[in-house]
Amino acid sequence: MAVNNNGNVADEQMIEGRNAVLEAFRSGKTIDKLYVLDGCGDGPIRSIVREAKKHDTIINYVKKERLDQISETKKHQGVIAAVAAYEYSSIEDIFELAEKKGESPFIFILDGIEDPHNLGAIIRTANQAGAHGVIIPKRRAAGLTAVVAKTSAGALNYTPVVKVTNIAKTIEELKKRNMWFVCADMDGEVMYNVDMKGSIGLVIGNEGNGVSRVVKEGCDFMASIPMKGDIDSLNASVAAGILAFEIVRQRTEF
Amino acid sequence: MAVNNNGNVADEQMIEGRNAVLEAFRSGKTIDKLYVLDGCGDGPIRSIVREAKKHDTIINYVKKERLDQISETKKHQGVIAAVAAYEYSSIEDIFELAEKKGESPFIFILDGIEDPHNLGAIIRTANQAGAHGVIIPKRRAAGLTAVVAKTSAGALNYTPVVKVTNIAKTIEELKKRNMWFVCADMDGEVMYNVDMKGSIGLVIGNEGNGVSRVVKEGCDFMASIPMKGDIDSLNASVAAGILAFEIVRQRTEF
Repeated sequence: MAVNNNGNVADEQMIEGRNAVLEAFRSGKTIDKLYVLDGCGDGPIRSIVREAKKHDTIINYVKKERLDQISETKKHQGVIAAVAAYEYSSIEDIFELAEKKGESPFIFILDGIEDPHNLGAIIRTANQAGAHGVIIPKRRAAGLTAVVAKTSAGALNYTPVVKVTNIAKTIEELKKRNMWFVCADMDGEVMYNVDMKGSIGLVIGNEGNGVSRVVKEGCDFMASIPMKGDIDSLNASVAAGILAFEIVRQRTEF
Repeated sequence: MAVNNNGNVADEQMIEGRNAVLEAFRSGKTIDKLYVLDGCGDGPIRSIVREAKKHDTIINYVKKERLDQISETKKHQGVIAAVAAYEYSSIEDIFELAEKKGESPFIFILDGIEDPHNLGAIIRTANQAGAHGVIIPKRRAAGLTAVVAKTSAGALNYTPVVKVTNIAKTIEELKKRNMWFVCADMDGEVMYNVDMKGSIGLVIGNEGNGVSRVVKEGCDFMASIPMKGDIDSLNASVAAGILAFEIVRQRTEF
């Protein structure tokens, strides 16, 4: 486990050194991120970068000091791969789960959750709210690290998590499959007055900045939690829970 | 900031040494916990213990190794006091706030939340749900540390937090002031079918064990979140948020 101040790196399994990293790609392991020494472009490194591009893996070119800091073995040979603690699923897995349960699809879309504790708590909530899957972006967001797995309290074993390159595009594609998208936004209509029944995607934004403009524009509705307090906002995983269970209330007969 | 594995100690301000600790008590500082070297009973220590008892402060008698571990200065002279990062309020402060707003009192009662991140997130939620205060127990629970203050995102400046010796007894006393108590419990009636209007106390239990038996017996209702998942439970601060906003929904016209 790498000990540093970068939440995206800490608690992922690290594979270091040229042969080990190349082998990891070729054996089909899911690599969350690849760290390559900036300016290093010899044969073996080029092969690794080629594999990374083939698998659509995020490549970070970093300085030697940064690599040394991430490195556990201190023998990284200019390349380190961060392996996902859990395997990612596909969008089809989500639809299959919904179909198996005979339910309209209910999907969480997380537009840039950065704190692994929040991501884990939201996956746990998604499971308990009966959602069929969670979609997260490749860039600028927490991946499925060991901390996320632990905070999810086992939910990662049941709820498919899918990683996509572009959240806005994914929403566009899912709309063609008759899904509606509701976006958590403080300027939205109070959630109790928004119809969130049927095939629904719940879009939750980044902890600091909320849902990004382009993603928001792709949503059908904006829903807000009625805040009565003196401060700005709720914790992201708490807000996700409140919205998710309003969807549960609307979808279910009690 | 003390760096160790005890969430109750880390991130509280520590005052070390006999004179400094005695001075802290006499100047009226709120001491969350007092650590005293086990077996140490000379005059100055006895004075400090007397002050601690007068202020109803929790006293922990610990071995030298433990004191050394908590100590930042390594000059503790057998005594360390953990100071609350924020001042606690009184129950009267809560009722005054409700009265000032012209609302029926809405109070969160936390029966043993141990994780400071959860406590901070719940205080933040209490503020946003329009609750008038939060009650926590003295023992076996997180206090108002710097982490809690940070996680509360400013809510600690607005929402009174009261520390009591005995949660069950406090509930008993509040019932005499016409309050009703609803306890979060998985075996309870689905929350949408429980009437939670009026003067209400929402009781949330410990992360692992839920609400304790004696506290549960003092509650008027048990309410559950309708769980549809494969795992055991929700994160404590998420569950508190979902229940709190069901109370908001019932109390408000939208």
